[in-house]
Amino acid sequence: MTETLETHVFPVRWQDDHVLLIDQTKLPQQYSVVSITRSEDILTAIQTRIVRGGPALGLAAAYGLYLGARVIDTEEHTAFLERLEAIAEQLKATRPDKANLMWSVDHMVEQVRHSSDSVSALKARLLETAQKIQQKDWEICVAIGQHGLAALPTEPAQLTLYTHCNHGALATSGFGTSLGVVRTAWQEQRRAQVIAGETRPWLQGSRLTAWECLQEQIPATVITDSMAAHCMQQGMVDAVVVGADRIAANGDTVNKIGTYGLALAAKAHNLPFLVAAPLSTVDFSLPDGTQVEIAQGNETDVCRLGDTVTCPAGVKTNNPLSDVTPADLVTAIVTERGAIVPSELATLASHQK
Amino acid sequence: MTETLETHVFPVRWQDDHVLLIDQTKLPQQYSVVSITRSEDILTAIQTRIVRGGPALGLAAAYGLYLGARVIDTEEHTAFLERLEAIAEQLKATRPDKANLMWSVDHMVEQVRHSSDSVSALKARLLETAQKIQQKDWEICVAIGQHGLAALPTEPAQLTLYTHCNHGALATSGFGTSLGVVRTAWQEQRRAQVIAGETRPWLQGSRLTAWECLQEQIPATVITDSMAAHCMQQGMVDAVVVGADRIAANGDTVNKIGTYGLALAAKAHNLPFLVAAPLSTVDFSLPDGTQVEIAQGNETDVCRLGDTVTCPAGVKTNNPLSDVTPADLVTAIVTERGAIVPSELATLASHQK
Repeated sequence: MTETLETHVFPVRWQDDHVLLIDQTKLPQQYSVVSITRSEDILTAIQTRIVRGGPALGLAAAYGLYLGARVIDTEEHTAFLERLEAIAEQLKATRPDKANLMWSVDHMVEQVRHSSDSVSALKARLLETAQKIQQKDWEICVAIGQHGLAALPTEPAQLTLYTHCNHGALATSGFGTSLGVVRTAWQEQRRAQVIAGETRPWLQGSRLTAWECLQEQIPATVITDSMAAHCMQQGMVDAVVVGADRIAANGDTVNKIGTYGLALAAKAHNLPFLVAAPLSTVDFSLPDGTQVEIAQGNETDVCRLGDTVTCPAGVKTNNPLSDVTPADLVTAIVTERGAIVPSELATLASHQK
Repeated sequence: MTETLETHVFPVRWQDDHVLLIDQTKLPQQYSVVSITRSEDILTAIQTRIVRGGPALGLAAAYGLYLGARVIDTEEHTAFLERLEAIAEQLKATRPDKANLMWSVDHMVEQVRHSSDSVSALKARLLETAQKIQQKDWEICVAIGQHGLAALPTEPAQLTLYTHCNHGALATSGFGTSLGVVRTAWQEQRRAQVIAGETRPWLQGSRLTAWECLQEQIPATVITDSMAAHCMQQGMVDAVVVGADRIAANGDTVNKIGTYGLALAAKAHNLPFLVAAPLSTVDFSLPDGTQVEIAQGNETDVCRLGDTVTCPAGVKTNNPLSDVTPADLVTAIVTERGAIVPSELATLASHQK
């Protein structure tokens, strides 16, 4: 099923009795929405990257769990929970690297595990919980946007913000973290414009961030990742705003490969380097980023782009999916609780749920 | 015409009565050699990027001028020179940004302009001059390789050198400048291996450098440009060796876009950052790089890769072709006269021809 283009971008939506997902593999050439009624199809959608981005994956998995739950044909609690947990495990196995997805599925199961209500009441509670997760993510992103706006330089009047990857509406419930800061700076009359690094190898910047910006008429310019330092040197960038996959207790930030190089370039040009992410991204049990293991992506992602082969056959490639930006390169970490310098991150530990 | 693959890579060769060019637009998928007998076809080959890289363009243009000259049907000096200069202007108009091409064509014309020899003797001298240019480029590159080798760290035993773009055999007479340093470090039992940054948007690194390395079995790993800083942080890189389009008298270096970001990352990790280029690349009339105008490439190069569209229709792109690396980020400039720190570059001014 394909719908007409909308101004606001909701990658995961609940409608009547089914889930609608924007097919992100087809962007930017084609906007199409996939309608899903079965848990199995959510599994496939996650595996094939129709849906991506931590919070959006968490939402899709939450609805996926409900879709699986509603067709469990039993009124017996133990049997229901057993089958629910089996579906939960399947969902968690799709992207074990994504903390939001793990959290979301576990949180769903927790809401019903110890209840003595009827199975049909539990099913209803699961749908309600998924919808609450969606609402909560929206509120967190809006708060991050406001705190990020306050942390941005007050000059010039029209800011140019450099972004990497896509931590936007498409990656969340519809507002975005780093791109939520941009969106806020655009809506709040700062008339922010965007330079979107294309973000090889997967091109989330040129494919997704650029598309999202076009939907809301936020002026966006795409460059290759290799052009970032030059643009900073030319005075074309006022601040860098990125997202995060995981933040250590000291503020070391794990994010999409390329982030670290941007942070070095920002430092060399005295530009603010903001990391925008929900507080749940901070892993207070991880003292710093030095021991983080970086997952390797598929070799062929570096060797090709779409149908175009970019390397000779037989050459080796390396494809680290993320990198670690040391806290001393981070100006502020922007969470729903405010924008703070990395050294004060620990003071927020008690706020994390 | 297509030949079988050779171990040694000569992008421009004179054979019997014609020029053979490796078609670099078809690499790495296909190795094919184009046979050219007419000046007009050299013009097209330059314009369509069948041949690329400053010294290789200079060579192709020199042979192109001879191919044009040999069919000038006159024995009269003035008429011959007039038509020769018209062909020279056509050749120079193909890539006015390439100093080597300008120099090469002018140098060819100079060899015959004031001679009273017969026109057929002048034609023979043009061919001889083109072949001398080729020989001289080879000698310069070999010398750069030796000086570069001496400037490399002595530890570890097996060096890993990071390269950007392709300043290799394919860009020169067959040895390369920055990749000539790598080639020397490989041949001289340093067993150097290469990490080749893919070099978006044109992918000279993944398409050409990787292919060249495979021909000589130099171990090469391709990464996206955004992975460079991470690889340095992980201790995977021992030195960065790049080429140059133009070097100012103070050592500021104009080179392929992305070079500056690499230099910042190398500095942050205390890695040697070598610029390898013929002394003719140094423009002693240019005090520093601050006023250099950076040419813009085609917008569509950033929006697509081969047949794959990477951006939504309607989004803006920016495509600076090169950037300026300040001299204080350059460890040494390696010319055929030796490897020297940028601040001593001026002492070589008298050696430049």
